[in-house]
Amino acid sequence: MDGTMAASAGEMLKSDTLLSPVVVQIFIPACAVVGIAFAILQWSIVAKVQVKRTENDATGYNHMLADEGGLEDPSVLNKVAEIQDAISMGAVSFLTTEYWYLAIFMGLFTFIIFLFLGSVDKFGRKWTPCDPAAPEGKMCAPSIAVAGFSALAFALGALTSTLSGYLGMKIATYANARTTLQARKGIGAAFSVAFRAGSVMGFLLTANGLLVLYLAILGFKQYFGDDWVGLYESIAGYGLGGSSVALFGRVGGGIYTKAADVGADLVGKVEQNIPEDDPRNPAVIADNVGDNVGDIAGMGADLFGSFAESTCAALVISSLSSMGTARDFAAMSFPLMITAVGIIACIVTTLVATDIQVVGSIKEIEPSLKRQLLISSVLMTFGILAVSFLCLPSKFEIIVAGEPNKVVKNWYMFFCVAAGLWAGLVIGYVTEYFTSHQYSPVRDVADACRTGAATNIIFGLALGYRSVIVPVFAIACAVYLSYSLAAMYGIACAALGMLSTLSTCLAIDAYGPISDNAGGIAEMAELGPAIREKTDALDSAGNTTAAIGKGFAIGSAALVSLALFGAYVNRAEIEQVNVIAPREFVGLIVGAMLPYWFSAMTMKSVGKAALAMVEEVRRQFSTIEGLMEGTVKPDYKKCVTISTDASLKEMVAPGCLVMLTPIIAGFFFGVDTLAGVLAGALVSGVQMAISASNTGGAWSRDFS
Amino acid sequence: MDGTMAASAGEMLKSDTLLSPVVVQIFIPACAVVGIAFAILQWSIVAKVQVKRTENDATGYNHMLADEGGLEDPSVLNKVAEIQDAISMGAVSFLTTEYWYLAIFMGLFTFIIFLFLGSVDKFGRKWTPCDPAAPEGKMCAPSIAVAGFSALAFALGALTSTLSGYLGMKIATYANARTTLQARKGIGAAFSVAFRAGSVMGFLLTANGLLVLYLAILGFKQYFGDDWVGLYESIAGYGLGGSSVALFGRVGGGIYTKAADVGADLVGKVEQNIPEDDPRNPAVIADNVGDNVGDIAGMGADLFGSFAESTCAALVISSLSSMGTARDFAAMSFPLMITAVGIIACIVTTLVATDIQVVGSIKEIEPSLKRQLLISSVLMTFGILAVSFLCLPSKFEIIVAGEPNKVVKNWYMFFCVAAGLWAGLVIGYVTEYFTSHQYSPVRDVADACRTGAATNIIFGLALGYRSVIVPVFAIACAVYLSYSLAAMYGIACAALGMLSTLSTCLAIDAYGPISDNAGGIAEMAELGPAIREKTDALDSAGNTTAAIGKGFAIGSAALVSLALFGAYVNRAEIEQVNVIAPREFVGLIVGAMLPYWFSAMTMKSVGKAALAMVEEVRRQFSTIEGLMEGTVKPDYKKCVTISTDASLKEMVAPGCLVMLTPIIAGFFFGVDTLAGVLAGALVSGVQMAISASNTGGAWSRDFS
Repeated sequence: MDGTMAASAGEMLKSDTLLSPVVVQIFIPACAVVGIAFAILQWSIVAKVQVKRTENDATGYNHMLADEGGLEDPSVLNKVAEIQDAISMGAVSFLTTEYWYLAIFMGLFTFIIFLFLGSVDKFGRKWTPCDPAAPEGKMCAPSIAVAGFSALAFALGALTSTLSGYLGMKIATYANARTTLQARKGIGAAFSVAFRAGSVMGFLLTANGLLVLYLAILGFKQYFGDDWVGLYESIAGYGLGGSSVALFGRVGGGIYTKAADVGADLVGKVEQNIPEDDPRNPAVIADNVGDNVGDIAGMGADLFGSFAESTCAALVISSLSSMGTARDFAAMSFPLMITAVGIIACIVTTLVATDIQVVGSIKEIEPSLKRQLLISSVLMTFGILAVSFLCLPSKFEIIVAGEPNKVVKNWYMFFCVAAGLWAGLVIGYVTEYFTSHQYSPVRDVADACRTGAATNIIFGLALGYRSVIVPVFAIACAVYLSYSLAAMYGIACAALGMLSTLSTCLAIDAYGPISDNAGGIAEMAELGPAIREKTDALDSAGNTTAAIGKGFAIGSAALVSLALFGAYVNRAEIEQVNVIAPREFVGLIVGAMLPYWFSAMTMKSVGKAALAMVEEVRRQFSTIEGLMEGTVKPDYKKCVTISTDASLKEMVAPGCLVMLTPIIAGFFFGVDTLAGVLAGALVSGVQMAISASNTGGAWSRDFS
Repeated sequence: MDGTMAASAGEMLKSDTLLSPVVVQIFIPACAVVGIAFAILQWSIVAKVQVKRTENDATGYNHMLADEGGLEDPSVLNKVAEIQDAISMGAVSFLTTEYWYLAIFMGLFTFIIFLFLGSVDKFGRKWTPCDPAAPEGKMCAPSIAVAGFSALAFALGALTSTLSGYLGMKIATYANARTTLQARKGIGAAFSVAFRAGSVMGFLLTANGLLVLYLAILGFKQYFGDDWVGLYESIAGYGLGGSSVALFGRVGGGIYTKAADVGADLVGKVEQNIPEDDPRNPAVIADNVGDNVGDIAGMGADLFGSFAESTCAALVISSLSSMGTARDFAAMSFPLMITAVGIIACIVTTLVATDIQVVGSIKEIEPSLKRQLLISSVLMTFGILAVSFLCLPSKFEIIVAGEPNKVVKNWYMFFCVAAGLWAGLVIGYVTEYFTSHQYSPVRDVADACRTGAATNIIFGLALGYRSVIVPVFAIACAVYLSYSLAAMYGIACAALGMLSTLSTCLAIDAYGPISDNAGGIAEMAELGPAIREKTDALDSAGNTTAAIGKGFAIGSAALVSLALFGAYVNRAEIEQVNVIAPREFVGLIVGAMLPYWFSAMTMKSVGKAALAMVEEVRRQFSTIEGLMEGTVKPDYKKCVTISTDASLKEMVAPGCLVMLTPIIAGFFFGVDTLAGVLAGALVSGVQMAISASNTGGAWSRDFS
């Protein structure tokens, strides 16, 4: 997008933004720092629970614990610590290997980005006039600079994503045993540890993502100066870096966790008739590691990717708008301000769960988590209102491909962002309805189980299909409203609105696998049925929140994809994607097929890895004497290795399908076909993702 | 489409069609009559097998049978006859009730069509000039005539579809017991009966459909005279009538058969541990009735709908082309000629299976059925070549919305039709690959069963997802090629090409449920394991052919929908469906959701009905004394009633969803949104349909 387009956007509009750039420049990093500080505070509270008993226990915290249930036996505590170490080591080992693979890939991709973008203008090193017709006008940065800074932003995005995933995993494996131990004190204490740990992950990810992006903008600005189009185009690499890591993290982690989960249950639960997470099961550590690398690190990378992409899409579009040409830094920072205010709103929300309305019994867990969604959304609605009026000029112009500029008023943007936010809330509530055992859908599925696996499958799949209806209408309304008000900028901001409560969503999402692990540790350390009952209740609610997290991820991904799709269409100068033309229609139908291809690949991979796991577990049960009696320990490491190897090997093909399709479609069949492919994959993928996520969420509810 | 548009199409092109209209006028009905005669011939061969032993058995046929296996016991023969009667009565009773419902609905709809079309021109009764600028030119029929004849055509289409389904069911229930009895003679004899009966259904449906349509055209022409646009626009009602019946037939029959099937197996196989089709199971008759009303009558109505729609779409488009304006009847009849030649090609193909390469052993069944696909496709390729050169002028012009007319050469049309034909063959072969136990996909699923239901689900769903890839590429290629060569006329003709071997496809498709019934009768009449082994082998191959039939139905439906979609877009004068505009995109994503909504409804219905069936079967097992011992007969009728009531009640909601969506979307949100909805539903529905059909096909393979 060259300077001529930017220059054409409403030079006539005067900026009347209320907030001065200085306030914005202080407010954004301040919110990020507050978010990080809050995360550290929560972490320090979690850290008070000591896993290993020390001689000089100054806090007296553990002594109080030890009073209850007669579980003060140090050998039990040691066992808990041992299991925690095994899980943590498995997760670190997997992520380290995965990140090595990713590092090679990302290094290569960084180089390719540099080459591609640089070659546009033959690696020219000269500043040229943005508008060739006005050689005295503004100057644009040379292509080699855009290429270099884009590659740098890409690497930064990839690194931040990796860091977020890794930190999340570290916190989760740190908190899982602590949740188990707190379950001795009661359900409230255990819930509190799991939820606080989840919020550490949530706030660190959001605040880190915002801070790095903000610092990158400030840093890049030193070079680009007044060339904001070049500046924000380079910054867009940050989003791509984030979502590239997300792709592999999600696929690799997903295969890992499902292979281990299925493999462990099939032999343990089904064949040997031992409980889930029984320490005699050789795959039990791999199963617990899987929760951390898949549902924590993978989910974190995924949502970080969506956040980074939507912010970058909004920034690029606004740099071409009258806000960009008027050099209105406060208005340009509107997308970042939403996230910054979101952090504050989420802090208040978190305090409600941890300090104001504390969970006291099992049946308060789900309402408490659900309340988090509602409170954060209500608070953010006021936050968005404030930001829209303070940060934006009363009127600005947005470029729309093939049409005259669109005049947008600041209160339009309130509705765009709020549409995304409330669509997210609707998706969250619908997901909860379809995956919580409090409501009829899951109960019907459970009832159907009584007549066997066949009716279970029928009802489960039907539940997933049915759960698509309302979320799709919610997304459709948000798209329609936000596009009508502010074209593609509106859609990007709607995505940001949905992600504005990201810290809270991630907290309740990460809470799931942590509780799952806590239950596993309780079982493995043989802490008895009273503790196990509490951890099971936490875990069960966690399956619902995990589904809600996936719902958010899918909804925001749909909006982000549409925003990026719009950016692509603008950039490729496609004025229309006419699906009744043969090229586009063929693209559309093939695109709609891609999610099926992708799913077939990943499901086959999970199946294969699970079968390998089953064989290994069977082998250990039949060859290791004393295993079933519990006198000899199984070889946990072997199972961890199987999951690790399978997921790393199997993530390549689906990853390539996603990365190569646009390149092949665009290169061989042209931009029109590619536009069709993207639209088809988007609309078909949304349905499949929501239905599969909710079917899975419902099936994983535990009624025992 | 008014006369002005028609008049603009290449008046300059002279027709040089080789065949004279008289030859065409004789050839089409002659082929239809030959098809009907062939069906009667096959039927008479099937009828030679006598179910009830008569005193004066002149043929000596049954005596020969009775010699084998010591099964000459008349009580066994009587039992077979009794079971056949029960199945036949159940099917007749269901279809009669269903058709009563349909009659009311169709009557209402016929009236609505008349009102809507008539009101366009306030029920004007005057012939007006087609081109208002040339009052001396051609005259167009008044709107009341178009409305009346459209309503008539609609009723004719609905009636023909109903008749086809009903006849198919009658033949199937006539042949099922005969197949069982012939199994005593050997696998070849049994296969022959089942396959011949299937071909009776196939040829009757195609030939009837063609004949009625042709006679309607001739009849309507008496009134419309030279106003071919009005004539063929009225004829289009035939397609709508056919597919309306198909919708309800498929949904009602589908719910019936699946509810009975699942209900019977869950209590019988799973709880009571008695074999499938055991006469002690109260739901066993309902199960066998279901095969006939769902997979025979429903499938027949479905494929008839596709055939009628694609023929009508092609006729309407060609009436607006230079073939229409030049009053070239031979060229106009090109779509009908494809079907006519197809009947002849399919007769030759059938003879290969019944008389030339007769099945001699179990392992020859599948290759024989597969060969049918290949032979009919090869023969039809030559048939299409001949028809394209003989029937069409060397050059003609097609109207394309928003673009200049497209000049089409006759050999272009060969490639359009052949593209559809061969895409169908590819779909058939891929379906066979994914649903036959000879190949690795089904074997992998079966292997996975050893580790339980969970891996079975994973591998089964993955198989279905994977099976989508090649068919979608095949459809995409056919669409691209045929649209490039002859725009929407090309796509309609490609659909016709895929359906040109319809008689053969229907034969191998109907073969499935007939064999399934034959197996059921063998079990219920206690004919012993030797017979049961043969009928099981027939049945197992039938599951694959049923999946192939569904594959064809889906593939042709996709092409037909696209052709109709094109017709809609032309008619609503939409020049483009730009999916990056918000209205269209919203339509697209909501449309892509509709197949999920529809599936959720039907699956829920099946689940509910199956649970009701389970309860009834359980009740009978627990309250009827002597049932398990086989001394007392169960109450079959009660189960038939449950399936009947459930399916009739439950078919309303999904039917309304399909019928009302376009009306609501178009009325409240405009034609652009509707275009998006149609495109989204089409591309998403194709994927879901193929994957669900093949997953189901693979799961239903029997490895016992």
